[in-house]
Amino acid sequence: MIRYPNGKTFVENKEPTTSKKKRTIHNAANRGMSFESDINASNEFYSENHRALITKRPTPINIVKVDYSHGARITDAYFEAQSTTDYNGVYRGRYLDFEAKSCHGKTSFPLSNITSHQIKHLEGVISHGGIAFFLISLVHLDEVYLLDASYVIEAYKKKERKSIPFEDIKENGHIVKQGYLPRLLYLDVVDEVYFHEKNI
Amino acid sequence: MIRYPNGKTFVENKEPTTSKKKRTIHNAANRGMSFESDINASNEFYSENHRALITKRPTPINIVKVDYSHGARITDAYFEAQSTTDYNGVYRGRYLDFEAKSCHGKTSFPLSNITSHQIKHLEGVISHGGIAFFLISLVHLDEVYLLDASYVIEAYKKKERKSIPFEDIKENGHIVKQGYLPRLLYLDVVDEVYFHEKNI
Repeated sequence: MIRYPNGKTFVENKEPTTSKKKRTIHNAANRGMSFESDINASNEFYSENHRALITKRPTPINIVKVDYSHGARITDAYFEAQSTTDYNGVYRGRYLDFEAKSCHGKTSFPLSNITSHQIKHLEGVISHGGIAFFLISLVHLDEVYLLDASYVIEAYKKKERKSIPFEDIKENGHIVKQGYLPRLLYLDVVDEVYFHEKNI
Repeated sequence: MIRYPNGKTFVENKEPTTSKKKRTIHNAANRGMSFESDINASNEFYSENHRALITKRPTPINIVKVDYSHGARITDAYFEAQSTTDYNGVYRGRYLDFEAKSCHGKTSFPLSNITSHQIKHLEGVISHGGIAFFLISLVHLDEVYLLDASYVIEAYKKKERKSIPFEDIKENGHIVKQGYLPRLLYLDVVDEVYFHEKNI
């Protein structure tokens, strides 16, 4: 059991499973869903240890109706498309911005789940001197990579490319070590890639 | 009529009013509500003119129930307390973070509408080298001030202080020029205060 600094716990899936296939799917789904919680817990750890301040943007929601009869209760609303990225914050005085994606495919990362608004946003971040990247979880390999946003933007703009093969992610990205606390040591990779420092 | 770059329009309230009191209240309410749209429009202008990339954080909402019968429709949800600030982004390579507040009082800005989470967040921003401030709209004076977050944090931590008098805001803050495009020229003040440059 992993005990996050916020008191929440993460219990690994240890139920008996009937077939190998079922177990794989189950674990993969768990991992996909827990990628976001892993990042959130890592950010909380980084924040509490005064290393960085990085927060998740709330999901944008368009509110249609609010019932005020028992406090404010939203009774009708819908999700809006995210026009920016999932996370941003400040690290070593710099602005840092990234999108997190779980990839359940086995060979390549599909570019279709990135919106043109997000590409425009990340181009803006780079042009204003911010640090911009993707954290991509290759679920079946249990590996997480940091891939600079400019690489993804270039791939996205090549009309003939519909996805980024895993070998390209491995060659152009940087593997993120996984640990106990923080779960994802992605700021070590940021130090290396954007500040040219190597953490031992 | 002000035409914002996003195509939205802002029509000034020009209806005839029956008494001076009524007009004042009406205008004040309008101005209070439009402060957020003024900031959003200014940010859009700054973004389109490649000066900065600053976005509003969506309001955090806790979703209880979603009806998937006709697309995803949220049928039960409630507002969560904002634990960070309204706006953040990147300007000249730096991380920038601020909270916007409309003040309808006539003599002082009450500290009660700032949460301890926000104070903690802004302390974090400052400690990591980010730029942190408040944009305060003094509705009845039709003036907007930029007040460095450290000043507000200090006032907040003095237990005996419940509000910041207008004269303190004027003395320690910096007036934000209002114009047509952008509506609020607050980055000129940021240049002056945080980059020690004077825009003419």
